[in-house]
Amino acid sequence: MRFVDLIEKKKRGGEHTKEEMNFIISSLMSGMAEDYQVSAWLMAVYFKGMTLQETAYLTEEIITSGEVIDLSPICQHGEKVLDKHSTGGVGDKITLILIPLLAACGIPIAKLSGRGLGHTGGTIDKLESIPGFKTNLEIDELIQKVKDVGLAIGAQTKRLTPADGRLYALRDVTATVDSIPLIASSVVSKKIASGADYVILDVKYGSGAFLKTSEEASELAQWMVNIADMLGKKFHAVITSMEQPLGRAVGNAIEVIESIEFLKGNMTTDIKELTYEMASLALTSLGKAQNKEEAYQKIDEAVTSGKGLEYFRQLIRSQGGNPSVIDNYRFFAQPNYAYQIKSPQNGFIWNVDAYKTAYACKLLGAGREKKHDIIDYSAGIYLNKICGEPVTEGEVVATLYANDADKIEAAQEYLKEAFSYSYEQRNRGSLIYKII
Amino acid sequence: MRFVDLIEKKKRGGEHTKEEMNFIISSLMSGMAEDYQVSAWLMAVYFKGMTLQETAYLTEEIITSGEVIDLSPICQHGEKVLDKHSTGGVGDKITLILIPLLAACGIPIAKLSGRGLGHTGGTIDKLESIPGFKTNLEIDELIQKVKDVGLAIGAQTKRLTPADGRLYALRDVTATVDSIPLIASSVVSKKIASGADYVILDVKYGSGAFLKTSEEASELAQWMVNIADMLGKKFHAVITSMEQPLGRAVGNAIEVIESIEFLKGNMTTDIKELTYEMASLALTSLGKAQNKEEAYQKIDEAVTSGKGLEYFRQLIRSQGGNPSVIDNYRFFAQPNYAYQIKSPQNGFIWNVDAYKTAYACKLLGAGREKKHDIIDYSAGIYLNKICGEPVTEGEVVATLYANDADKIEAAQEYLKEAFSYSYEQRNRGSLIYKII
Repeated sequence: MRFVDLIEKKKRGGEHTKEEMNFIISSLMSGMAEDYQVSAWLMAVYFKGMTLQETAYLTEEIITSGEVIDLSPICQHGEKVLDKHSTGGVGDKITLILIPLLAACGIPIAKLSGRGLGHTGGTIDKLESIPGFKTNLEIDELIQKVKDVGLAIGAQTKRLTPADGRLYALRDVTATVDSIPLIASSVVSKKIASGADYVILDVKYGSGAFLKTSEEASELAQWMVNIADMLGKKFHAVITSMEQPLGRAVGNAIEVIESIEFLKGNMTTDIKELTYEMASLALTSLGKAQNKEEAYQKIDEAVTSGKGLEYFRQLIRSQGGNPSVIDNYRFFAQPNYAYQIKSPQNGFIWNVDAYKTAYACKLLGAGREKKHDIIDYSAGIYLNKICGEPVTEGEVVATLYANDADKIEAAQEYLKEAFSYSYEQRNRGSLIYKII
Repeated sequence: MRFVDLIEKKKRGGEHTKEEMNFIISSLMSGMAEDYQVSAWLMAVYFKGMTLQETAYLTEEIITSGEVIDLSPICQHGEKVLDKHSTGGVGDKITLILIPLLAACGIPIAKLSGRGLGHTGGTIDKLESIPGFKTNLEIDELIQKVKDVGLAIGAQTKRLTPADGRLYALRDVTATVDSIPLIASSVVSKKIASGADYVILDVKYGSGAFLKTSEEASELAQWMVNIADMLGKKFHAVITSMEQPLGRAVGNAIEVIESIEFLKGNMTTDIKELTYEMASLALTSLGKAQNKEEAYQKIDEAVTSGKGLEYFRQLIRSQGGNPSVIDNYRFFAQPNYAYQIKSPQNGFIWNVDAYKTAYACKLLGAGREKKHDIIDYSAGIYLNKICGEPVTEGEVVATLYANDADKIEAAQEYLKEAFSYSYEQRNRGSLIYKII
């Protein structure tokens, strides 16, 4: 088999066999194929697509290119191992809230998460804004912590799906990121290699997501669910709007604070809708609730009883963080500067653009442009007003936090642009477009 | 400007500006762009194509990536500098015949030619089968020889169109060779950088050519003529069939011998048709003949007077070769083995497949699989019978020559398969499909 012949085959719209897909990925990993051949193949895949079967083969090859974690020891009664994945959004702190709530409902969780890049944040960065919180865990540590306190969250290691790392690095610089089968195989392989049997995907679309329309998001979601099914795993996908940031906080420490507030019972409607929907999917799918109604009751109870908050405290303590942050937010790093944006008119907030908000937040120092950039955990944005809320002229609509006045100066321009106003009140409606 | 954005633009079907094309080629040459980005761009070009204007920009960038030869000193009366190019065929020795004939008709010629690769031969390899013949000439030597004897043929240097070399090396291993705009820019840039003002292209199609149909060949030819026109040069293209080898000889020394025989007046119909057509185009286009009729008379005269043969002798002598080969073919290297293939039936030769013949010839040692393979000049094939000729059972239809009995054993199988027979006589018809 020669790599050039496989490029030619894909270029002509041919379908790769299992053996061919094995050859492609093993050649990539062994260096037998040159990067310039792989990138030409990726571009041919962009144009000619792949069948579900090919994508499943690719996914399997990516999984077996590295370590595959066995998390079954955390499920002492043979339950399925749960995981959750978001395709990336702005102000998306759902994992921080969902995980302790599910743990409180009796689902053990050992989760591996990623860091933020570009305009979207990452769960690991957010957790690391808690002083002392350690995410660099070996798998046996992770499992032990779940046995001890019911939940644990670690940073993804490079030993998982190294082929995906190689492919993504090439796709990023060759304009071949936006291919449904390539995205689907990347996400599904990572989840399966992380040890998951059952996964809830949050596939986002809109200004703050990398997919712009609900149709594209639905298509990608359907692919991921189908491929997982072909590989013997159950995935659910929730297709959700990311036109506006989730909740009021965008940043790192500031999002942890909003998550703690949620667990204390102070919820924005959008975060509540998404968290409850996903938690309810998990509870019913894993046999912890008979139906949606019972699931919602259990989640309500996990909040009102303070049990969810208690699990979050255990999580922090178990991973070396300072649990006092829960009771006193001053234990988080404090920013030097705050700046308020005020409404230019009376009326209502019509829209807060997710992408522009994220861009402003990155300018404040809360995000990464490049992989090795350092994050300022205290930087961030608080949306005093969100979509549909009434405002009066001169009222504060947003607050920017940073350690550098210049950064605030640069960011506030973008954040101002993110806001639009109206004289009529807008009903934001449901975030959830579809469940697959 | 970032290379990845230009890949994205082409992927979306955008048209590159002159500045963008300059950025692409200068990034390739400076190493600022990585090979894996260039190959992804090439694959996007394969799928989305290029406009004539883009292709002309690319051609210009390839030309100026290296040395541009000034051959005007060979034309002492301000005539146009002539060149001829074939897209590659089997038994294609037209250059060897055409050049001395045109020189005999008063057209000075300094030509740079290539070596053979894959199943097609190269003019330089054929000339080097003449003992002592030197093709490694500096440009001022080339020009001096034209001033001295009227014609000279040198090997292409790496200093011409280095960007084409880089692009081709990538295309070859990434299945992006078969793109009309990429092929067109490669050929046209090389001809213009070689100093040509007027070029006759022989664009071949069929079993022995890399383009399979007359439509594809016509499309490529039209592109090359149009691009040259946009760059202020006059190109003619002759679209010709390469279903069967040209003439009776395929190899190196053996093709030189057939060329000498032609200049002595012993011509096969196919070689005569092509040579006369192209020579006549050159003579009329360069003002050496009023019309086709006059041109044909002049070519006839160059043959019958022996003037063409005399120019070939001068060419050999001027470039250090042994001119005695013209009078005694035993001065060429002689093969150790000869093997005859015989007709299995009475009747006629229906077809001799060009590709299979070329493949057999390469197995005999007459061609290269890889760039640095060494050629056996004495190896080759003589077609005792060609299309349309009558045969009797047991009569010799072809003779294989090689220095290794094993090679003959391997090659004869393929050559046998190249022949097909019939009870009816076939009229091969004209080789020329169209002139553009």
